[in-house]
Amino acid sequence: MLAVSEDTICALSTANGMGAIAVIRVSGKDALTITSAIFSKNLTSKESHTAHFGVILDAQDVAIDEVLVTVLKEGKSFTGENTTEIACHGSVFIQNEILRLLLDKGCRMAEPGEFTMRAFFNGKLDLSQAEAIADLIAADSKKVHQIALNQLRGGYSDNIGNLKQRLMDFASLIELELDFSEEDVEFASRTELHALVDELTVKLTNLTNSFAYGNALKNGINTVIAGRPNAGKSTLLNALLNEERAIVSEIAGTTRDTIEEQLTIDGVNFRFIDTAGIREASDEIERIGVERTYKEVNKSNILLYVYDANEMSSEEVSSDIQKLERDGLDILLIANKVDRLAEGATLPSMGLNYQTVPISAKEKSGLDHLVQSLSSSVNALSSESDTIVVNARHYSAFSKALEDIKKVEIGLAQQIPGDLLAMDIRSAIRNLSSITGEITTDDLLGNIFANFCIGK
Amino acid sequence: MLAVSEDTICALSTANGMGAIAVIRVSGKDALTITSAIFSKNLTSKESHTAHFGVILDAQDVAIDEVLVTVLKEGKSFTGENTTEIACHGSVFIQNEILRLLLDKGCRMAEPGEFTMRAFFNGKLDLSQAEAIADLIAADSKKVHQIALNQLRGGYSDNIGNLKQRLMDFASLIELELDFSEEDVEFASRTELHALVDELTVKLTNLTNSFAYGNALKNGINTVIAGRPNAGKSTLLNALLNEERAIVSEIAGTTRDTIEEQLTIDGVNFRFIDTAGIREASDEIERIGVERTYKEVNKSNILLYVYDANEMSSEEVSSDIQKLERDGLDILLIANKVDRLAEGATLPSMGLNYQTVPISAKEKSGLDHLVQSLSSSVNALSSESDTIVVNARHYSAFSKALEDIKKVEIGLAQQIPGDLLAMDIRSAIRNLSSITGEITTDDLLGNIFANFCIGK
Repeated sequence: MLAVSEDTICALSTANGMGAIAVIRVSGKDALTITSAIFSKNLTSKESHTAHFGVILDAQDVAIDEVLVTVLKEGKSFTGENTTEIACHGSVFIQNEILRLLLDKGCRMAEPGEFTMRAFFNGKLDLSQAEAIADLIAADSKKVHQIALNQLRGGYSDNIGNLKQRLMDFASLIELELDFSEEDVEFASRTELHALVDELTVKLTNLTNSFAYGNALKNGINTVIAGRPNAGKSTLLNALLNEERAIVSEIAGTTRDTIEEQLTIDGVNFRFIDTAGIREASDEIERIGVERTYKEVNKSNILLYVYDANEMSSEEVSSDIQKLERDGLDILLIANKVDRLAEGATLPSMGLNYQTVPISAKEKSGLDHLVQSLSSSVNALSSESDTIVVNARHYSAFSKALEDIKKVEIGLAQQIPGDLLAMDIRSAIRNLSSITGEITTDDLLGNIFANFCIGK
Repeated sequence: MLAVSEDTICALSTANGMGAIAVIRVSGKDALTITSAIFSKNLTSKESHTAHFGVILDAQDVAIDEVLVTVLKEGKSFTGENTTEIACHGSVFIQNEILRLLLDKGCRMAEPGEFTMRAFFNGKLDLSQAEAIADLIAADSKKVHQIALNQLRGGYSDNIGNLKQRLMDFASLIELELDFSEEDVEFASRTELHALVDELTVKLTNLTNSFAYGNALKNGINTVIAGRPNAGKSTLLNALLNEERAIVSEIAGTTRDTIEEQLTIDGVNFRFIDTAGIREASDEIERIGVERTYKEVNKSNILLYVYDANEMSSEEVSSDIQKLERDGLDILLIANKVDRLAEGATLPSMGLNYQTVPISAKEKSGLDHLVQSLSSSVNALSSESDTIVVNARHYSAFSKALEDIKKVEIGLAQQIPGDLLAMDIRSAIRNLSSITGEITTDDLLGNIFANFCIGK
């Protein structure tokens, strides 16, 4: 089992490169003595959460920099260990010199994520909270940021802490029954266990379902713009981005390669993918373009099907949509070029069970409505669970726990023996515990923290 | 006159981009109240140099991040003003959100160098020290770093503080004489003034002379490698860098463009420039190459003149050197290909007053000696002054002060009237005072601080 190392570690914790200041973090039992050995003041007896101005000195007592060192003591720091944070002038030269001096005095360079790993080992964070830190640092949109921060602050404890405890109580009671197996007693109320299983099934289903949303949020919502040639797909992309990103022309088939651009709507990152128009291809280049369009649609969360409201019949639209629709793909019908509809004419219905948004990409009208529809189609996904799962490892563990709980449910219905029931319950508990790190393996921990940046 | 603004300012002080942590600095009279307005704890009554863990909250009390805020109070901070340093998780999203909240609560974004400018206005640093901070952050070699740090810590006070004071005393005494002009008194001893002028002349000459060295250090020592075709110049460059940077071949004239590479020797950055061989050009491309060689030699501090020790006569070498030598250019004669000298043969002297370094670039022998010679030729430059001037503004002011002092010397010799003498002395004092910023103009300050990075 990996255990927290006795070494004192150090690393640059701020972004790489030159800045006005940089912060070097030192953590471990000797953090205060090692830092004091290169600093003009003795920090060992300083109180936690105090900052000290002084000079970093090399082995020849030559001044390297004037710095502010913050002391954070064992039990009160992020890692739970003695920690110093050295705020120095931000030249790369100074950063390297101070790290070199720390190494000379007995520190070693921190591995990626090692500060957070120590926080986990020292009980300052559970594993899902530790993972949330990496997500928090990488978050580039408000929604993902909020999910990561909520996870860091509360973990899954609100969601599953209590349920897991009750599950453990049942497992113990059922196992106790086994000791009295000849007396045919039932310490664990099967009715109550059934109620708990129902509760867990709802909770775990919501959590696993939320992953589709969480994962899309984390990676950006893939929103493919497709439709026939010259429907105005590239014009729509340009209108959404408010810039001339894609080349547009009156010539059908102007777009060949797929074009991808990001846009943040209501704190959610959308990745818009403009594609070649769908039709029977007239040449090889066009054939490849159309093939790519289908591939993009298959990878997407949302399809904006753009059509010319003046030209397309409901049969044509239906026929296209049939080729494109699939489970898990949200479709919006974008009736384009409504500025050319005859005065007083109403938009013909396509007779499909998808929302239609009338726009004029050229005139940039109707875009607000489209943006709103995009936003609500994302929000609709999220409504079922308070907690959003964004981490594939957690999704996998929740899914396995849900399978275990389903087995318990079936076992209850079939009145299987207590020892078999207890086995499934224990398996569910193990899977739930793996999320918070009460049960871990070295490989798992190695994997998780290797993905951190150094200095965290 | 620019004065310190009443505004409270904020900026990201660590390097741009994502890191494990980032630090946002807030400075100004409302720094504590504004930071408290977005923080879960009230910081206004906290003691200076204390750190506080808590949560940044937005206007809807939604948590934005868990942070560590360090409080530095008026008079005890870098700027001299109330300051907070917010260490947050290092996502760009979080950095921007916190800055946005600070702006909402009444901060404004700091201008480049504004924190340091405030430190200057509040008397925490003199102007030359403030400028040293920019140099310190930009320093990428040990020597430049040490000069900048010494300047930050002591300024020029050790060098000129006392001399300037004595000069001011003399100016006052001479001006006092003017009030008693009809009585023909002499309060200021001309002998003592002469001694002071001598002392200042030595000091200022050393300081102005040190700029050639300081400037070369700051920008890297330009070291041009020149010589006839096939002398082994590119092989030498590759050997120094220990990599195959330049294309080498047996064909004379392989190198056409000049090739530039940096190498740090004993804490000094050398910029090595490999050039096309010098000879009567046989075509247009070669002619341009040779022309460039002469240009590079003219821009350089050191010339490594490489020649084949087996082939070149002292007449040929002398003739080349005559074309290349100039004032301020250090020349080392690099006798290459000594591995091919006949057994027991001695290296023929070139009869020139320059150091000869025998090497074999191909065998990588003699390079240590060459590196030592380079290092000592740089150190030789520096020996005359304890303080090295690296800043062109300071050099200009010292030069002007030196001119003033020379006028005073001439005036003393010619026994000119006291009022004329006092004028020159005052001018010298003004020039010296401009260095430390006791005398400044808005334009000057604007120029100096505009070159800082934001957040410093």
